[in-house]
Amino acid sequence: MMVELPYLLKKESICHRKDGLLYIGDRRVFPFEKRFEPCSTVEQVAAALKAMVTQGGGPLQVAFTTLRFISEKMRLGRLPYSYEELRRSVALLIGARPTNTTMRRAMLALLEELAPLFADGAGPDEFALKVDELVDEQELYYDETYHQMGRIGSTLIEDGDVILTTCFAEHTFLLSLAYAREEGKALSVLVNETRPYLQGSRLTYPCLQEMGIQAHLITDGMGAHYLAEGKITKYMTASDLVCMDGSVVNKVGTLSNAVACNYYKVPYYAFSISPDPTKLSSSEIVMEERSAEEVLHCLSLPTTLEGKALYPSFDIIEPSLVHGIVTPKGVLAPSSLARSFS
Amino acid sequence: MMVELPYLLKKESICHRKDGLLYIGDRRVFPFEKRFEPCSTVEQVAAALKAMVTQGGGPLQVAFTTLRFISEKMRLGRLPYSYEELRRSVALLIGARPTNTTMRRAMLALLEELAPLFADGAGPDEFALKVDELVDEQELYYDETYHQMGRIGSTLIEDGDVILTTCFAEHTFLLSLAYAREEGKALSVLVNETRPYLQGSRLTYPCLQEMGIQAHLITDGMGAHYLAEGKITKYMTASDLVCMDGSVVNKVGTLSNAVACNYYKVPYYAFSISPDPTKLSSSEIVMEERSAEEVLHCLSLPTTLEGKALYPSFDIIEPSLVHGIVTPKGVLAPSSLARSFS
Repeated sequence: MMVELPYLLKKESICHRKDGLLYIGDRRVFPFEKRFEPCSTVEQVAAALKAMVTQGGGPLQVAFTTLRFISEKMRLGRLPYSYEELRRSVALLIGARPTNTTMRRAMLALLEELAPLFADGAGPDEFALKVDELVDEQELYYDETYHQMGRIGSTLIEDGDVILTTCFAEHTFLLSLAYAREEGKALSVLVNETRPYLQGSRLTYPCLQEMGIQAHLITDGMGAHYLAEGKITKYMTASDLVCMDGSVVNKVGTLSNAVACNYYKVPYYAFSISPDPTKLSSSEIVMEERSAEEVLHCLSLPTTLEGKALYPSFDIIEPSLVHGIVTPKGVLAPSSLARSFS
Repeated sequence: MMVELPYLLKKESICHRKDGLLYIGDRRVFPFEKRFEPCSTVEQVAAALKAMVTQGGGPLQVAFTTLRFISEKMRLGRLPYSYEELRRSVALLIGARPTNTTMRRAMLALLEELAPLFADGAGPDEFALKVDELVDEQELYYDETYHQMGRIGSTLIEDGDVILTTCFAEHTFLLSLAYAREEGKALSVLVNETRPYLQGSRLTYPCLQEMGIQAHLITDGMGAHYLAEGKITKYMTASDLVCMDGSVVNKVGTLSNAVACNYYKVPYYAFSISPDPTKLSSSEIVMEERSAEEVLHCLSLPTTLEGKALYPSFDIIEPSLVHGIVTPKGVLAPSSLARSFS
């Protein structure tokens, strides 16, 4: 049986087409507004991705829908029907989010599968059909993989667990909770608000509420408090990237909790569809610094007078702090990741 | 030589009298406004303290000034001149901040010293003179103690140190930095913004700016990030209370950094004028839960839709995580605190 995803993760909430436009669900204003950013060109889609209208797994879904959007425009003669045009569009999408390696790999694979159609002289109708077929396939693959990882994740959850989470761990984490509940396990979640963007407060918490899962918000400095009190039994997050040595790269703030989990002997699990085969260890990670203005503001209000701040986007969590990585191949120890994904 | 305190810690900024009113510096709106809360009665002072107009060391200074305010009113015949009236006023102040043990002890000691005047038939003029004399003495004692602890704290700071701090560690911490700089040591500070009230962003950071000390704001989840990168060399905070066994009670978020310091082998120091002789260990601490609404808001803006949140006011940092406690008697190991303060 398939459990249901909350509003924010439904495909049409992430991205949909209507009357010749592509609409991207604006996570920057959620949950205060359910607003969509309308795009009439691929340039506008790329600009929206750059502006962080959506994030996490959002850009992948946007890229899939954009491919359908392009093929429809080509079929209707509103965009030149050529491989060059397709390649240019894909490059725009990929370039909008250089660190989203999942989206890049998926789009480059689709481009490679579509290239022969142009060489073989297929027309725009045939091309549009093929795009739909391939994107359907990809969407199904991700749907199935998310649910599979959710089922695997749910096996880690025990009756009575109180799970700490940081940022917005999306499908795999939320499905793990949903399947665990289906299995009759009682659980509740403590959600770090995740400054500066408040993804915990704005994205994760409303999803849990909608799913009817008991949850409490805490500030980012409170994890250790409840670990010390013995009230947290698991820590679970998504990962922006996992290296082949089992190092996890995730939203800044994750390390602080992982270190505290290690001290208080609570296991930390990260979700990952696959480690990045091009990153053998964390020494190959280039740390992205984001705008200090974000730390100097909250919900667009200044938190102090003019000043200096730092905003490293990611933490690197060394393998020894990671109890297990939830993958489609099962829950793997960091040290056995390379063997399973070689 | 005495180094200078920043605006926020000057006595007149914390509390002053003017034209028959007592004005309390409103830390809730600092640094956006330099506003004072006017009080014409002790009831209003107590209400302002309850409403957190000032915090940390503020209430002690407010209580001292209120004692002068009361004696003046008694001298002018605007308040009944009686021991009963004095006792009632002191009880109001103490009751406004039941966890502020320093203020309570200081006020009860003053009450005890003033009681004989009424028994001996001294008039309101003599009483007012005695109040001024005793409060002058107390203020001088705290001034000297703060500077003494600042000088002791400065000896811990090494040239090139990058010091992490949480919340607003006030006089002793800021004076330690000032004296270290006087000694020619280069230093800079990383300041946790300290959600939900943002004392780091609003109070500590502007003080450091005013003092010309290099500082950067970070969110509460970023301490471990910079510890892992080896960029933080010391962690220093105030303490709301220190137990005789060396357990430190301080603003929630302190434990998270103390655990990370322990993991990355960076020393954590807490400032304390004195441990609380009535608290032998942390098992005697009653944890105060504050309003969840604070976690659900930032600068009065909601961070999510309606929801549930948790807000434990304090962390308890066990003695093994504390490298040293900076006291007027020197920097003491947690284990030697009881011996030095018995």
